[in-house]
Amino acid sequence: MKTIDQKETAAFITSRDTLDGVYPGLILGMNAVRLGMEARIFYTFMGINVIRKGWSEKAKFQPPGFMGAIPGMSAIATWMMKSKIKKAHVPCVGDLQEMAQCEGVKFIACKMTIDMMGFTKDDFIEGVEIQAAEEFLKYAKDCNIALFT
Amino acid sequence: MKTIDQKETAAFITSRDTLDGVYPGLILGMNAVRLGMEARIFYTFMGINVIRKGWSEKAKFQPPGFMGAIPGMSAIATWMMKSKIKKAHVPCVGDLQEMAQCEGVKFIACKMTIDMMGFTKDDFIEGVEIQAAEEFLKYAKDCNIALFT
Amino acid sequence: MKTIDQKETAAFITSRDTLDGVYPGLILGMNAVRLGMEARIFYTFMGINVIRKGWSEKAKFQPPGFMGAIPGMSAIATWMMKSKIKKAHVPCVGDLQEMAQCEGVKFIACKMTIDMMGFTKDDFIEGVEIQAAEEFLKYAKDCNIALFT
Repeated sequence: MKTIDQKETAAFITSRDTLDGVYPGLILGMNAVRLGMEARIFYTFMGINVIRKGWSEKAKFQPPGFMGAIPGMSAIATWMMKSKIKKAHVPCVGDLQEMAQCEGVKFIACKMTIDMMGFTKDDFIEGVEIQAAEEFLKYAKDCNIALFT
Repeated sequence: MKTIDQKETAAFITSRDTLDGVYPGLILGMNAVRLGMEARIFYTFMGINVIRKGWSEKAKFQPPGFMGAIPGMSAIATWMMKSKIKKAHVPCVGDLQEMAQCEGVKFIACKMTIDMMGFTKDDFIEGVEIQAAEEFLKYAKDCNIALFT
Repeated sequence: MKTIDQKETAAFITSRDTLDGVYPGLILGMNAVRLGMEARIFYTFMGINVIRKGWSEKAKFQPPGFMGAIPGMSAIATWMMKSKIKKAHVPCVGDLQEMAQCEGVKFIACKMTIDMMGFTKDDFIEGVEIQAAEEFLKYAKDCNIALFT
C-alpha cells in the first residue's frame, strides 16, 4: 500500500545478454527516472553477463531466425546495429549503463544466477547490488510498472 | 492517479518481428478491448518491422534452438505454424492487425527505433502513431496491466 | 477493485519451451506464493509444451546467437546449464513444477494454443486448467504484478 507522497516506482528484468536484450531495460530505466520515478533493473539468467566487468564492449546483436544460423552473421548484424545506434546518437551499452547509474537507476544481480554461474561480487561493475528473486519480487509487486524485457 | 469512472487501460510492447513475437501483443490487445479496456501496442526494436507496409505477408515463425540453425527450417516451421493457425481459425497477422485497429487497439511506433532505422511515417501501415519511449512509459506506468511480450 | 483483506495476486506468462523460457515463471511463481500471494502461470504458444506429459525431462537450453547455430551446441549448452543448475542446488524443471504446484502455484493452459496444436486435456500433467486468453487477462489485469517472461 502506498502513501500519497511516495515516489512512483519501476522494476525491469533483463534476462538476455544480447544487444536487443540489454537496451530495453536501460532505456526504460532511464526514462522512468526522468519521469521522477525510482527504477531498478534486475539482471538474471544470461542477462547477468551484461553487468559483468568488461562485458559491455562485447555486446552482440542477436539476428532473428535463419540469419542467426549463418556463421559470422551475428557479427555483421551486430556491426550494422551498432553503426545504426551510433548514427541515431543512441549511446553504446557501456555509456548507457554509466548514464543510467549516474541518473539513479539501480542495478541488481540475481543471487541464484550468481550461485549457478559461480560468480562473486567482484565480477560485476561498480554499484551492483545482489538480491534474491524473492526480495526483488517484493519490490516489483508494489511497483507502478514491472516489465520482464 | 485514476478517477473512479475512468476506463481501464492496457499497454503491450512488441519488440520482436517473428510470428511468435507479433501474435501475443495483438491477441492480448484485442482481448483487452473486448473487456472494455483501452489498449495500446508499442512497437520497438525489431518489432517495429511488424507495422511496416507489406510486412505482415512475410511474417516468419522463429523455431527455437537447434531447429533454427538448419537452413530452410524456419520456412518449414513458418509454413507448419501458419497452417496450424489457419486450421484453428486464428486470423493471419495482416487480418488480425486490421481487426485489432478496427476494434480500437492503438498502434504506436517507437521514435528512437524509427530514427535508428531511418524510417519515416510513410513506411508504416495506416493509423500508426509515433511516440518516444518516455511518452509511452508515462501511459504504461498508469495502466492496469503492462506487458513486454 | 480489490477489498482491503483480499490476497495479493501474481500472473506470469510462459511463451517459450526452452530452459531459459520455463525457469522464470516457475521461480517467480513459487516466490510469489512464499510472499503470501496467489500465483498463476499461463502457458501459451510454444510455452505450452512445458506442461505436456513427459516434457520436463527433455527441456533444452537455448544458447544465444552464433552458438545456437552450431549443430549439437544446444545439447552441450543444455548439459552445461543443467550441471550448473544441479551444482547450485536449483531443482530440475520436473521437480520445480511439482514443488510449485504443491505450494499452490496454478498452471493454466491457453485454449487457443491447445486448439492450434490439436492437444487435449489428457496431454498435460496433472492439475493443469484450461482458459481462454480473455479469461486469463481478466485475472491478470487486476494482479499486483503481471509479467510476460
